Amino acid sequence: MKPDKIILGIDPGTNIMGYGIIHNKNNKIELITMGVIKLGKYSNHALKLKKIFERVLALIKEYKPDELAIEAPFFGKNVQSMLKLGRAQGVAMAAALYQDVPIFEYSPKKIKQSITGNGNASKEQVAAMLMSLIKITEAPEFLDATDALAAAVCHYFQKNIGDDGDKYTGWKSFVNKNPGRVKK
Amino acid sequence: MKPDKIILGIDPGTNIMGYGIIHNKNNKIELITMGVIKLGKYSNHALKLKKIFERVLALIKEYKPDELAIEAPFFGKNVQSMLKLGRAQGVAMAAALYQDVPIFEYSPKKIKQSITGNGNASKEQVAAMLMSLIKITEAPEFLDATDALAAAVCHYFQKNIGDDGDKYTGWKSFVNKNPGRVKK
Repeated sequence: MKPDKIILGIDPGTNIMGYGIIHNKNNKIELITMGVIKLGKYSNHALKLKKIFERVLALIKEYKPDELAIEAPFFGKNVQSMLKLGRAQGVAMAAALYQDVPIFEYSPKKIKQSITGNGNASKEQVAAMLMSLIKITEAPEFLDATDALAAAVCHYFQKNIGDDGDKYTGWKSFVNKNPGRVKK
Repeated sequence: MKPDKIILGIDPGTNIMGYGIIHNKNNKIELITMGVIKLGKYSNHALKLKKIFERVLALIKEYKPDELAIEAPFFGKNVQSMLKLGRAQGVAMAAALYQDVPIFEYSPKKIKQSITGNGNASKEQVAAMLMSLIKITEAPEFLDATDALAAAVCHYFQKNIGDDGDKYTGWKSFVNKNPGRVKK
């Protein structure tokens, strides 16, 4: 049996940064925590970055994830928004790199594909699928943290943590191999 | 008299990151150190970011700068290169934010304007002006670190560290106010 793993998922943004932490335990995905870091209240760009770094570092120190999965869009509207997004990603990644936590990047399409089987799934569809996969009791601000949680679960699928050692390539193959683990 | 200040200048790039550290001592700009962090040898993007973070953090811990001046272009060729640049900036900034070193950003044009009086000056012109301002004995890789050093000197001009408390707005006003400090 593979060792248990804790995965931190991050969805970096310049106004809201979502995070979700899952634990692979006895071949089940358990939610450890999820939430958002609200940045809109900080008018100063450097202060936003500082908050991101501090909060991500605090999450890493508290929950000691083995790996970081980050949602990383590679296309954006314009160069200025991409520069800001890159900075937000950079400080979040720096917190992980500083603590020697390996980073894995996934595009939004890849994450949606992995969770729902459809790369163009809506946020609500991703959330619904996540709720069928993981017992989630906390509802507040759920949708804001969903993308981060989805990144963590996507990474779980990729990283071959299953009991049979096969490489899970996504939700479909996971369901096929684990029909009993799907909550009806 | 204003307290002495140590300024770390950074020119973040995804292949080469330049740095220059100056000390304002007795109203003279003294070079403490300058150099480059070569990143081209690391094929892995996350490893590049890790090296940037570690090296900038090490510079901050060793030289204890009071402030960080960073060259920050806001326009680029395409969104992907800007995302990468943003990440490189982000991890460098995270190292400073982590050590509570305030960050000041300057556009390349502003830095050139401040150092040479011409926002469109060439790299060589900036370097020549820096060499007339600061006693630089180390020649190797000088041009690669110039932009970083220029950012630090630009910040020195902005930050009003002069003995008369006036706000220096650039090289021209600096020369006008300090004709004796220009090396012929």
